[in-house]
Amino acid sequence: MNRILIHPDEPLENGIVELHEDRARHACSVLRAQPGQPLRIGLLNGPKGAGIVQEISNDCVVLKCEFEDELPFCPALDLLLAMPRPKVLKRLWAQLAALGVGRIFITNAQKVERCYFDTHILDPDFYTARLIEGLQQAGDTLLPDIQIVRHLKSFLEKEAFLGIGKKLIADPSADQSVFQCLEKPEGKVPDSGRIVLAIGPEGGWTPDELALFAEHGFELVGMGERILRTDTACIALISLISEIQRRTP
Amino acid sequence: MNRILIHPDEPLENGIVELHEDRARHACSVLRAQPGQPLRIGLLNGPKGAGIVQEISNDCVVLKCEFEDELPFCPALDLLLAMPRPKVLKRLWAQLAALGVGRIFITNAQKVERCYFDTHILDPDFYTARLIEGLQQAGDTLLPDIQIVRHLKSFLEKEAFLGIGKKLIADPSADQSVFQCLEKPEGKVPDSGRIVLAIGPEGGWTPDELALFAEHGFELVGMGERILRTDTACIALISLISEIQRRTP
Repeated sequence: MNRILIHPDEPLENGIVELHEDRARHACSVLRAQPGQPLRIGLLNGPKGAGIVQEISNDCVVLKCEFEDELPFCPALDLLLAMPRPKVLKRLWAQLAALGVGRIFITNAQKVERCYFDTHILDPDFYTARLIEGLQQAGDTLLPDIQIVRHLKSFLEKEAFLGIGKKLIADPSADQSVFQCLEKPEGKVPDSGRIVLAIGPEGGWTPDELALFAEHGFELVGMGERILRTDTACIALISLISEIQRRTP
Repeated sequence: MNRILIHPDEPLENGIVELHEDRARHACSVLRAQPGQPLRIGLLNGPKGAGIVQEISNDCVVLKCEFEDELPFCPALDLLLAMPRPKVLKRLWAQLAALGVGRIFITNAQKVERCYFDTHILDPDFYTARLIEGLQQAGDTLLPDIQIVRHLKSFLEKEAFLGIGKKLIADPSADQSVFQCLEKPEGKVPDSGRIVLAIGPEGGWTPDELALFAEHGFELVGMGERILRTDTACIALISLISEIQRRTP
């Protein structure tokens, strides 16, 4: 927990917040909070800030919160992810939030088993808690926006991907890397800089799906010869794209 | 399992191998193997190849194996990883092998809990099985070489890191990214191209440890403002370095 997140409903008028349970335990046993000490905090979907410890009692830490004027930047990367096995997605939520993704579309695909959608992993209460865990790890405050897509084809037809500069789809058949795609002159990320990245299911995208993505302007990108598990590929590709975005002025 | 791995003791003189249990089940139910069909195989720590299905019985698939003449390239990246929590390392073994790492040094560090070393996660039988799982996923055959380092200081003093072109240490205090470090003219990866990357424990490296690494020629690299979990950071940084190595001629 590198930043303690506060829900917008929590602060009283004078900026006072009471931490209980996990956050209080973390403040006491990991951060060894003492009265007067400032803790790194953030308002969920709001600005970052500092919380000055006012009081520590048995199982409650009282903070006086001050927030910055400006909101953090929203990550300029969206992920369109074919629904992975639930136990994989369960672990992935926090990691995606920690890496920084603006929107996450979890989509059906031909090689996704239908039963994967009937799990608590897609329940907003479940994933929001995991996403907050990832944000607190990374020190960010902005929750990714989550959408569940049941029909990929109609989604691609309707979703305009407004403001998206570049659409990428990961597939081992690609003959270019993310670098090659984003760095070649004609592939320069436009001013908006937003990128959407599609990552397939364990068995990969089908030829029909690849054709559909191509029709909608998605370009194939790969990571060399190695075939990675969905979760490893997500982390690897998001890191690569974020790193390229960070150094693009 | 994108490549079925065969142990060097398995093939009979005529190249015949019998698959049982997991590998047989995978060949039958996922690959739907039929007599005459070639399967992607590899000799553990040896060449890749093809196995032609000879016979399928109840719970055994018989292959005739042919291996390529040349060995695959060994990844030009070594990882020096402060021992993570056992349940994190348990999941990480396969992912590290899948991403491609030449040597993995699991080291003690000031913020590593001593009890972490008393687990079956560091038992060669345990991790070798996980590494093979990762190789079979990625389609590689070369097992990373694993060493357990109990004393970081004496290890850094003795280990000459022969053939290493560049030593990197990940830390949020870094003011340069992996790109900036590897791409600046004086940071050009030398011909040998080997890189060693040090990644700290959950609480980070201590100032003493950072000084020790600096003394031994390690350069700080970071990934922006976000603080990632050890496993996420490993995957992110290994992917970045491998991608830079792939495009360096």
